[in-house]
Amino acid sequence: MANDNKDAITTLALRSVEGAVSLRARQISEALIRHLHAFVRETEPSDDEWTAGIDFLTRTGHMCSDTRQEFILLSDVLGVSMMVDAINNQLPPEATETTVFGPFYVPPPAFPSGADIRGPLRGPPLFISGVVRASDGAPVENATIDIWHSDADGFYDVQQQEKQPGLAARGRFLSAEDGSFSLWTVRPTSYPIPDDGPVGDLLRLQGRHPYRPEHVHFMIYAPGFRKLVTHLFAAGDPYLGSDVVFGVKSSLIQPILSHPAGRGPDGRTIAEAWYELRADFVLADS
Amino acid sequence: MANDNKDAITTLALRSVEGAVSLRARQISEALIRHLHAFVRETEPSDDEWTAGIDFLTRTGHMCSDTRQEFILLSDVLGVSMMVDAINNQLPPEATETTVFGPFYVPPPAFPSGADIRGPLRGPPLFISGVVRASDGAPVENATIDIWHSDADGFYDVQQQEKQPGLAARGRFLSAEDGSFSLWTVRPTSYPIPDDGPVGDLLRLQGRHPYRPEHVHFMIYAPGFRKLVTHLFAAGDPYLGSDVVFGVKSSLIQPILSHPAGRGPDGRTIAEAWYELRADFVLADS
Repeated sequence: MANDNKDAITTLALRSVEGAVSLRARQISEALIRHLHAFVRETEPSDDEWTAGIDFLTRTGHMCSDTRQEFILLSDVLGVSMMVDAINNQLPPEATETTVFGPFYVPPPAFPSGADIRGPLRGPPLFISGVVRASDGAPVENATIDIWHSDADGFYDVQQQEKQPGLAARGRFLSAEDGSFSLWTVRPTSYPIPDDGPVGDLLRLQGRHPYRPEHVHFMIYAPGFRKLVTHLFAAGDPYLGSDVVFGVKSSLIQPILSHPAGRGPDGRTIAEAWYELRADFVLADS
Repeated sequence: MANDNKDAITTLALRSVEGAVSLRARQISEALIRHLHAFVRETEPSDDEWTAGIDFLTRTGHMCSDTRQEFILLSDVLGVSMMVDAINNQLPPEATETTVFGPFYVPPPAFPSGADIRGPLRGPPLFISGVVRASDGAPVENATIDIWHSDADGFYDVQQQEKQPGLAARGRFLSAEDGSFSLWTVRPTSYPIPDDGPVGDLLRLQGRHPYRPEHVHFMIYAPGFRKLVTHLFAAGDPYLGSDVVFGVKSSLIQPILSHPAGRGPDGRTIAEAWYELRADFVLADS
């Protein structure tokens, strides 16, 4: 009898969307109702727990602003973003693997190859160089390479506009005829995702740390190829096994080499110890 | 291989909550991850659809204010609120059935039995009277009966504070020694839930109307009994079969009787046609 009631609610709700404006709207609505009802039936929330859930979603919405997207963070920490990534990026095995986009992208300023994009940021110098290739190994000329990453304290430029306005550690490059590109920046670090909001509360309830392992974001696109959204992760980082957003894939882990002060790979003289990250990519055909 | 990737994400996400602060936090987190991942795997959202989902949740959050709870509306129109109601109110068959609380409750002002709670509202007079009983049929004295409903245009007082400040069509009564109570008010009407926000957009995508059938809300509590949250619905309403929040139960449908101008049931003279709703309740033991 009690179960009949519950089944009746699900049946009524499913029937209500039969006239949806499109097959896709109906498909998504039906799946949402079925899985949401199954979640509620399994967990049997008390009235207070339901209220806490409504309150959590409301606070998550109120935390969203032009510079903070708490629902993307929520999608990330629940593994939904990586699931969507896996669904939409079933690539040939030779192509570079994808990972989450993250909430900190903004279109970056263009730089010539070899430029230093650190802006006003301080931190250990990092030289990044690589080649963009097609699946058959041919270099891809004029690929657009957007790069962005945190500073040495774990913050992106967009997170510290009050302290330091303007963009930094973020740039757009074009690959040369041989597919190559290079740049200087500062070495990023592992960092906690913003955890002063509802998603931080959730992580604490779940007994989880908020850290992402050190990484550099890349978005690479060229005519005739699929857009590649990925990271390179620093080998040896203590959070590689427990990235709070589940973004790590073993093929994306790269050593960051350490060099003493002296002559850099581009002939430049570096007055302090510096680091080097090799960043080669293979684009899938579109 | 692609499926392996997806399974791996779910496994990683489930493992991440193993150290949750309580068994219940772990239970809910695991169920949330499993059902959410199953929803995503079934629907295979494109990147654009995922973005639309994030945007929908964000707009829903931004619509929430002190006088508008868009996430409760969302829970209501997806059948989640009625599912939570069914889970938490498995009552003996003789007890009055429950239904959704709704977003428009505020603690009402107290009135003596027989009072008129219409305040400044215009509309056809409605006389409500009934008896509160226990499962064994014995009258319940001093039960608190909170009543609230829309006006004849389908709006609650809290929705029109700018036009008409203060509470109206809302009152608290105590049952007499014989369990009885009565009051005058205005007859409500079927009405659309607020559909100028994201939930309205969703209903339009789903091809659904936003209407609730005409009803009066009751919340009744007395020491020794379970709190009863319910409605009475007007028999004959065209929306009884398609209540947008799935709140209708057949045992809660009552005729609203029509009377010509003249003497009311309490001896009062009524200058216009008036209506009458019988409202008897049986409380479950706590």
